[in-house]
Amino acid sequence: MASVQNGQVTLGNYLLERLIQLGVKQAFGVPGDFNMPFLDLIEDHPNIGYVGCCNELNAGYAADGYARVTGKVGAVITTFGVGELSATNAIAGAHSERVQVVHIVGVPSTVLQGHQAVLHHTLGDAKFDAFLHIAQHITAATATLFHAETAAAEIDQCLAAMLLKARPCYITIPTDLVNVEISAKSLETPLRPTIDHPSKEPTEAFLVNRIAHLFETAKKPVVLIDACSLRFHVVDIAQKLIEKTGVTFFTSPMGKAALNESHPNFGGIYIGDISMPAVKEAFETADFILAIGTMKSDFNSGSFTWRMPGERTVELHSDHVVFQYGRFEGVTFQTILPLLVEQVTPLKESQKVAVHPWPKYLGTPTGPITQEGLWPLTSTFFKENDIVFAETGTSAFGVLETKLPKGAIFGAQILWGSIGWAGGSILGAAVAAEESVVPRRTILFMGDGSWQLTIQELSTMARYKVKPIIFLLNNDGYTIERFIHGPNRHYNDIQAWKWTSLLDVFGAAEDSYATHQVKTFEELSALMKEPSFAAADKIQFVEIFIGKMDAPRALKLQASLTAKVNA
Amino acid sequence: MASVQNGQVTLGNYLLERLIQLGVKQAFGVPGDFNMPFLDLIEDHPNIGYVGCCNELNAGYAADGYARVTGKVGAVITTFGVGELSATNAIAGAHSERVQVVHIVGVPSTVLQGHQAVLHHTLGDAKFDAFLHIAQHITAATATLFHAETAAAEIDQCLAAMLLKARPCYITIPTDLVNVEISAKSLETPLRPTIDHPSKEPTEAFLVNRIAHLFETAKKPVVLIDACSLRFHVVDIAQKLIEKTGVTFFTSPMGKAALNESHPNFGGIYIGDISMPAVKEAFETADFILAIGTMKSDFNSGSFTWRMPGERTVELHSDHVVFQYGRFEGVTFQTILPLLVEQVTPLKESQKVAVHPWPKYLGTPTGPITQEGLWPLTSTFFKENDIVFAETGTSAFGVLETKLPKGAIFGAQILWGSIGWAGGSILGAAVAAEESVVPRRTILFMGDGSWQLTIQELSTMARYKVKPIIFLLNNDGYTIERFIHGPNRHYNDIQAWKWTSLLDVFGAAEDSYATHQVKTFEELSALMKEPSFAAADKIQFVEIFIGKMDAPRALKLQASLTAKVNA
Repeated sequence: MASVQNGQVTLGNYLLERLIQLGVKQAFGVPGDFNMPFLDLIEDHPNIGYVGCCNELNAGYAADGYARVTGKVGAVITTFGVGELSATNAIAGAHSERVQVVHIVGVPSTVLQGHQAVLHHTLGDAKFDAFLHIAQHITAATATLFHAETAAAEIDQCLAAMLLKARPCYITIPTDLVNVEISAKSLETPLRPTIDHPSKEPTEAFLVNRIAHLFETAKKPVVLIDACSLRFHVVDIAQKLIEKTGVTFFTSPMGKAALNESHPNFGGIYIGDISMPAVKEAFETADFILAIGTMKSDFNSGSFTWRMPGERTVELHSDHVVFQYGRFEGVTFQTILPLLVEQVTPLKESQKVAVHPWPKYLGTPTGPITQEGLWPLTSTFFKENDIVFAETGTSAFGVLETKLPKGAIFGAQILWGSIGWAGGSILGAAVAAEESVVPRRTILFMGDGSWQLTIQELSTMARYKVKPIIFLLNNDGYTIERFIHGPNRHYNDIQAWKWTSLLDVFGAAEDSYATHQVKTFEELSALMKEPSFAAADKIQFVEIFIGKMDAPRALKLQASLTAKVNA
Repeated sequence: MASVQNGQVTLGNYLLERLIQLGVKQAFGVPGDFNMPFLDLIEDHPNIGYVGCCNELNAGYAADGYARVTGKVGAVITTFGVGELSATNAIAGAHSERVQVVHIVGVPSTVLQGHQAVLHHTLGDAKFDAFLHIAQHITAATATLFHAETAAAEIDQCLAAMLLKARPCYITIPTDLVNVEISAKSLETPLRPTIDHPSKEPTEAFLVNRIAHLFETAKKPVVLIDACSLRFHVVDIAQKLIEKTGVTFFTSPMGKAALNESHPNFGGIYIGDISMPAVKEAFETADFILAIGTMKSDFNSGSFTWRMPGERTVELHSDHVVFQYGRFEGVTFQTILPLLVEQVTPLKESQKVAVHPWPKYLGTPTGPITQEGLWPLTSTFFKENDIVFAETGTSAFGVLETKLPKGAIFGAQILWGSIGWAGGSILGAAVAAEESVVPRRTILFMGDGSWQLTIQELSTMARYKVKPIIFLLNNDGYTIERFIHGPNRHYNDIQAWKWTSLLDVFGAAEDSYATHQVKTFEELSALMKEPSFAAADKIQFVEIFIGKMDAPRALKLQASLTAKVNA
């Protein structure tokens, strides 16, 4: 550990060493007068870097995207009050979608806090805890460091709670504590998720037996893989279960690409009534569903149209199991799944749910680009290990219908659904791609309305020389909203921008990017086939012109369901 | 009231009619699926308009800027969860700086809330109150409408609390209540601030007597006008006090331009130790200080170096008076000041504190633009009734040293100090300028680091054809931070943009704007003298190149004070 000397480490570096242990190689942030001493440490540390973002919301999104790609932890650094509150939405989104993000806030010195001075960046009421209270609603744990003696333990507890819950945590560090020396001893013990329940061995054995029995006796068992399988790292063990049994598996939208979509047992993406019809039919023949890490939100479940009746379903979660109708607290899939893999036996052929082939991509469509043709064409462009991020709107619903190759990572905010998210998170994803041991391209699909929220981070991508392929869907406004309400309302219009000039204006070096405008399938298809484009060795910015009232199949269905329930 | 028919009004329109009564002619926002039914009503209402912003933080800032210019109320409309949390910093800033902003959030229908459904835009935990709890920390009052029967009363209470406290309020409106009809009866009674204390007549009379006596007997009395005088609309009555007594008055940074800076009794801007020396000397000769609406924050008081000892000072506030060391709760300056004006008599000539002339602007400086020469030159450019907004950083400290003409409005976040604020708030200011009965130019000073946070709102200015004059100070990064900490640190660097190309890229019509780049005083001075530029009949975007380590006098002093207390 680079910053440890004679068993001592500064408090700031203690936190950095912990972040490094958790897999953070780059942190995102915006400087402010209360966090600069901490930023000094990052700038001087050989094993962690800093990506300066244009604003804090985007920095929070970037940390989220980074964590999704590394599968580990993201870090965002802001300043007291003004900076941290700008990141609120990003942290809440990570909380909602269960992404591990550490929000580190530089705060006034312990002396100033003690005096309750009416400082700039305060609410003017001499209270310093309002921002902490806000953070408590959107994080797994908070640590407001104040005493050097207890700070290491508080940091460790806070980070461990983040690991346990797969939700963000919040740590404040006063300017005068950053460089205080403390013992580095506890850094020798790696952090583990805190466990908040006693051993449940008999319950576990009972459940494993019963689940294995269901696999044996069901006529048509299936497995559903959802987001928490990814967040809690049980995908590999879930895959072993699938390999050993030969069971057909499905993913939810939030679990998309958790396992290889080219796997022969992959049944498709199940979204209840808005699934592709063959997928829906296949899934709903099941008389036993093992659901791993499900998040039953409206957009993840086709507005709650998942057919998973209690008597046929076992849900495995990070902190409980639902066995048919019974709830078992404190039993986790991390423990259950390895035991289950040992116990299950291969299914009989008759038990296997037939897998329907993914709709084939049939030649290049022609003429103006439509949503219907765009996504099948896009599927042909993807390569192994691609990172594919899609913004809430037509993009996320469209990418759901593409087949992602082996090793691909899919990122979208299906639950939180904050427009603009992808603009920041793609920066984090692209930074993480640079660290990846396998080569990864970073590909973004995002609409024009959404990109306007967070556009400045395009400049940061140029600044740090990451190389995403960006498909900007120019459909002249908030198309997803038009489908839900007010298709011709002015509030769904936006200002038309000259999108392909942005990188130049944002100071990207001439040889660091290329821009393209495509209106027809012929143009888009030709571009995708160009080796220099597909190589992704610079920023590729593609403006796709597409109809204002055009949307993917699934979005149209979802929007009409949403409009109905809102009314 | 346009939306009232047969004594009935829809709940959504009830809220709009109240906003209109409070002076809101334009509301700012971003659409989302839970606020679109409410946006329909605005789009259809003849007396209130909607400005669609690029993101919610900027929309919140715009509402703040609008309220500062109209002197009334701003309104921002966001959607549940994702939208409202993005505006958190803007609302907290309005809370801190006591600006009246109504934050209206479209939320899921009462039915969905009742079901506790895991909807998109939720934290995934079926709790719908986290966002309310967050809002409670940064607003004077909240109203979460749920029952049509009580909604009007709840709206009225919430808005009245905002008026009483001069802080924001927060109102959620479920999609299914927007069009429910309710009685319009209470709209006939105008809203007044709720009064939360019993009559204090004897106390008031006692205090007025004593204060009048101090005016008579002090050797050198002065008046200090600060931000709350503006926020609570006591500036006019304070001016009567000054006219009748002939007393010398000063303002704080946050009170700048509250009263005419060309008034013969104006002593200057008092910022304790970082005041201009002549101003400091004049103020500190006083043996009686009547301080009206003070906000004793660090940057407003020269890091708490105001010399206002208790025995010589009477503070008048919106909800209490501090008479020398004694605190009198529930006595307000709204009541005290008119009584005091009646009772005071003109000062004797010997009592008057000498006013030092504002440092004269002596000809055009020459050569590369410096902070030292920039602000005196800028002073010569201002006209009566100009709106001058300045971003936290060199801009706000610089504008403090300019003399603003009669009727001018000054806007800056001296207390909250959120960088990026001015980029959104100038949109609101420019929209308010269009409504002004006297012609007003809208002028912004903002650094490059700050503008990057909120740059997309430049596009909204072009879209809505407002006509600010924007001075972009290109000093290659976060100069204010460099003065506080880490002058050569990379985290204080930013990506260099081609600033003058932004309006074109953001789709501004060719004849709707002009851009300029100036490096020398000769160029800037010539530009300011050009009638077509000064006419402000289109967007004028001026990029001023200025030294990276150059700052106004007051900022240098403040930064070194801040660095010291942080350490």
